[in-house]
Amino acid sequence: MDQGKPVLVVGSAALDTIHTPVGSAEDALGGSSFYFSTAASLFTSVRLVAVVGSDFPKEKIAFLEGRPVDTTGLEIAEGETFRWGGRYMDDPNQRETLFTRLGVFETFEPKIPDHFRSTPLVFLGNIHPELQLRVLDQIDKPELVVLDTMNFWIHGTPDSLREVIQRCDVLMVNDEEAIELTGRSNIFDAADDLLARGLRALVVKKGQHGAILFHQNATPFFMPAYPVRKVIDPTGAGDSFAGGFIGYLANSDLNDADAWRQAIVHGTVVASTTVEDFSLNRIQLVHLDELAARVSQLRAMTRF
Amino acid sequence: MDQGKPVLVVGSAALDTIHTPVGSAEDALGGSSFYFSTAASLFTSVRLVAVVGSDFPKEKIAFLEGRPVDTTGLEIAEGETFRWGGRYMDDPNQRETLFTRLGVFETFEPKIPDHFRSTPLVFLGNIHPELQLRVLDQIDKPELVVLDTMNFWIHGTPDSLREVIQRCDVLMVNDEEAIELTGRSNIFDAADDLLARGLRALVVKKGQHGAILFHQNATPFFMPAYPVRKVIDPTGAGDSFAGGFIGYLANSDLNDADAWRQAIVHGTVVASTTVEDFSLNRIQLVHLDELAARVSQLRAMTRF
Repeated sequence: MDQGKPVLVVGSAALDTIHTPVGSAEDALGGSSFYFSTAASLFTSVRLVAVVGSDFPKEKIAFLEGRPVDTTGLEIAEGETFRWGGRYMDDPNQRETLFTRLGVFETFEPKIPDHFRSTPLVFLGNIHPELQLRVLDQIDKPELVVLDTMNFWIHGTPDSLREVIQRCDVLMVNDEEAIELTGRSNIFDAADDLLARGLRALVVKKGQHGAILFHQNATPFFMPAYPVRKVIDPTGAGDSFAGGFIGYLANSDLNDADAWRQAIVHGTVVASTTVEDFSLNRIQLVHLDELAARVSQLRAMTRF
Repeated sequence: MDQGKPVLVVGSAALDTIHTPVGSAEDALGGSSFYFSTAASLFTSVRLVAVVGSDFPKEKIAFLEGRPVDTTGLEIAEGETFRWGGRYMDDPNQRETLFTRLGVFETFEPKIPDHFRSTPLVFLGNIHPELQLRVLDQIDKPELVVLDTMNFWIHGTPDSLREVIQRCDVLMVNDEEAIELTGRSNIFDAADDLLARGLRALVVKKGQHGAILFHQNATPFFMPAYPVRKVIDPTGAGDSFAGGFIGYLANSDLNDADAWRQAIVHGTVVASTTVEDFSLNRIQLVHLDELAARVSQLRAMTRF
């Protein structure tokens, strides 16, 4: 794939402690900005904005040096790196937070370096909607802004979130979140509602049940998940999906409806690799030819 | 579609009382044999074996007279018709049984009429596995036997169920049941396990998340559900799916892998109509051209 337009990501940077039915990992690299950057940099250049503490073990992101990821915007602040601990159940869609130590993430103020300000594609990772707004205030109007959020903000800061949505092009949430956000009873009505607010597209992530793309003026697209036989760690699947999705669009004509479908397919296969090992262990080793093979398999498994 | 090979169905016949978030129905026509027959008779002729009580309001199945459904095997026994009451939650995959009055179904002994004994395709609806075995004992070996069951039998009568499975070609269950039946941790391992027992295919139904076909010697097939904007009553979706699935196969070469995929697609669209109204109100009015339109839509919504 050709090197596409650059993508700016603003999100979390974390050290995760994860327990799953098949094993555990402690202080492993995590956070939306790292998952997204690793995934998107398979397709295009990435500009990363996040914060870590002075305790952050930099060797954990040494692999990013070999990739087109500009880490100028990775701030190192005095204090502890954000740490999250969680436990996944047999159903990987169910997880329990064991602890959250915000550390330097608590006072994160995204500062967009000057040479990042006119990036054509932007991913706003799941952070406080007020911070997402402040990112948008610091940049020139991009061609495409993709927004991630979660139920915590849907319930906690609905007004700010509504404002961010109005300034974004694509919202990426799971099915429950789409319903909670709109108060509608099913995802189809929720999609109508969100597209009527001016969004260009809504991506509904359903974990092992796949994803749906609702797009202004285009037929919805239903994509089953790539069948992963052994899910080791579901953390980061959504951010990797976003990285594959936006990375693909960075090489595409945004007015091409087929490209949006291919972007969903590429998000799907990238996410399928992430969950095959803890942390970023697997996704940092993935190559485009492996992804292309999974895309072919998905086509063979869905055509009729 | 041409009139295909006949299909024998043995299952329940019931009067259902149903509460959903959008309304209620009382003593409405239900039971796997009626849902299946109505669906399958869109494609081929059906031979029905079931039991109702002397209180059964025959006018409720008057519409079957206009269809290729042979009701010789519908026994009318002294006593009450099987009645089931249930309540669906906002998530249509979740339901609560309010009451079960077995009536004449408690002592149901399927008697296969002589002229039904050599039917090429058979659907064993979700009844006691011992009764399913007695059905198989009364008939000549069919070309294809499709089996439905549920967690109640998986836990209650595992040995009989294992024996039925060994005598069937296709098992049709939901994802939880596939996992409970095999004790494996995911549907892919569960499918391996079940196909290794000699099944020709496993159909995993996932409700609004679609269905998966696992077939001996063929690539798995992942099919999203047809998007139903307003689910009124999910009852009978699985039996209607089975009816569309087997009805399609009744017109096909069973060695044609593409026909099996089309059968899944047709089961999907038939089920999508069933849930659009209470009981059999909607499915009894469906025509093949409506189904064909939904098949086209599904193709347009899944291709990439």
